[in-house]
Amino acid sequence: MLDAAEGGAAGLEIVERDDGFIGVSTFDYLAPFRRWKPVERRALRYARGRVLDVGCGGGRVAVELQARGREVVAIDPSPGAVEVSRRRGVSDARLMRLEDVDASLGHFGTVLMYGNNFGLFASRSKARRLLRTLRPLAERIVAESNDPYRTDDPVHLAYRERNRRRGRMGGQLRLRCRYRNLIGPWFEYLLASPDEVTEIVEGTGWEVERFVRDDGSFYVAVLG
Amino acid sequence: MLDAAEGGAAGLEIVERDDGFIGVSTFDYLAPFRRWKPVERRALRYARGRVLDVGCGGGRVAVELQARGREVVAIDPSPGAVEVSRRRGVSDARLMRLEDVDASLGHFGTVLMYGNNFGLFASRSKARRLLRTLRPLAERIVAESNDPYRTDDPVHLAYRERNRRRGRMGGQLRLRCRYRNLIGPWFEYLLASPDEVTEIVEGTGWEVERFVRDDGSFYVAVLG
Repeated sequence: MLDAAEGGAAGLEIVERDDGFIGVSTFDYLAPFRRWKPVERRALRYARGRVLDVGCGGGRVAVELQARGREVVAIDPSPGAVEVSRRRGVSDARLMRLEDVDASLGHFGTVLMYGNNFGLFASRSKARRLLRTLRPLAERIVAESNDPYRTDDPVHLAYRERNRRRGRMGGQLRLRCRYRNLIGPWFEYLLASPDEVTEIVEGTGWEVERFVRDDGSFYVAVLG
Repeated sequence: MLDAAEGGAAGLEIVERDDGFIGVSTFDYLAPFRRWKPVERRALRYARGRVLDVGCGGGRVAVELQARGREVVAIDPSPGAVEVSRRRGVSDARLMRLEDVDASLGHFGTVLMYGNNFGLFASRSKARRLLRTLRPLAERIVAESNDPYRTDDPVHLAYRERNRRRGRMGGQLRLRCRYRNLIGPWFEYLLASPDEVTEIVEGTGWEVERFVRDDGSFYVAVLG
């Protein structure tokens, strides 16, 4: 019993939700293209022109796009992520949050938000504000989300309901990262259904061009 | 990013320590003998006579001893553990805590505490009280522990120091289990060095007969 008492968590991503839910995953931030989720692979064709890779992590997406001859600016608020991306050959990786993107970065064909990073929009109001800010800066947004209603897990369904009772979006998660004895600050992370994305986008100057879906809950929204 | 947000934790044991440390392990509660830790395999020869398997979990140890023709009483405070042990063929698995062991269970050749279960003694004072209670009930105790000082991990060393400043044993962990959105109660779990075991045992009627060790931090204490 309890061999975990002082066991390490190498390679595991541990996220705590504000209902006490502990999520653990082994997401591969360095995965080559052939090991990406199918929807990410299929939707990459919509990432046209110069690309802003938002939340670049270990440079997974930027490395692939550069190999295809594309110009990429990769941003991440984590100094470690930026350093790893640079070491892996990402030529323009910068320490920056989505909220701080402005015209100084130049104009983009595509703002790319893979790895479930539509979540960085955080909430309906923040999403709408950021979408308006991005409108003059890019032709297109290609963003992956996770439909929060495609689950029959009673714990997650109860969390959706709890959120709605509080006037929040069902998939508006309040999370913090845990690693060994380190506890990150609470932050918002938004899971939205395709219908919710359509409703959020309305009046921001963007329109949904298509959703790239498969049988799973993850999908990619293409906004133009 | 953050694919862990609602990711499951199937097969992972997640333990939170009171300094915020999150431990994650994949300990196999059903492992056959050949996959046990080497010290557990080597020390099993000292489990003589009728055996009380304390904290039997999935019946890993009881199943092995029964296959060797031994009489075993297996106890665990988890109803699920007791049910799994029974289904796996443990003929006498009971819902019971170490604290509730008494003469009604009969006399034992060996009280066996594998899977780091010396930890169930919880603290110096509780260990000494339980050892005195067990003295008339058994010939021998064979208990596995984890030497808390055989680490150069600064996080764990700081926790030892913090404990000592509070008058606790260095390896006296305060823990709670986490699983999805379930949070268990805080409890004490003791990691003790061989020297500490020797000191704890003194005056309880028990004596250390031997320590079975290898190069790692886990070892087995044989008390008689």
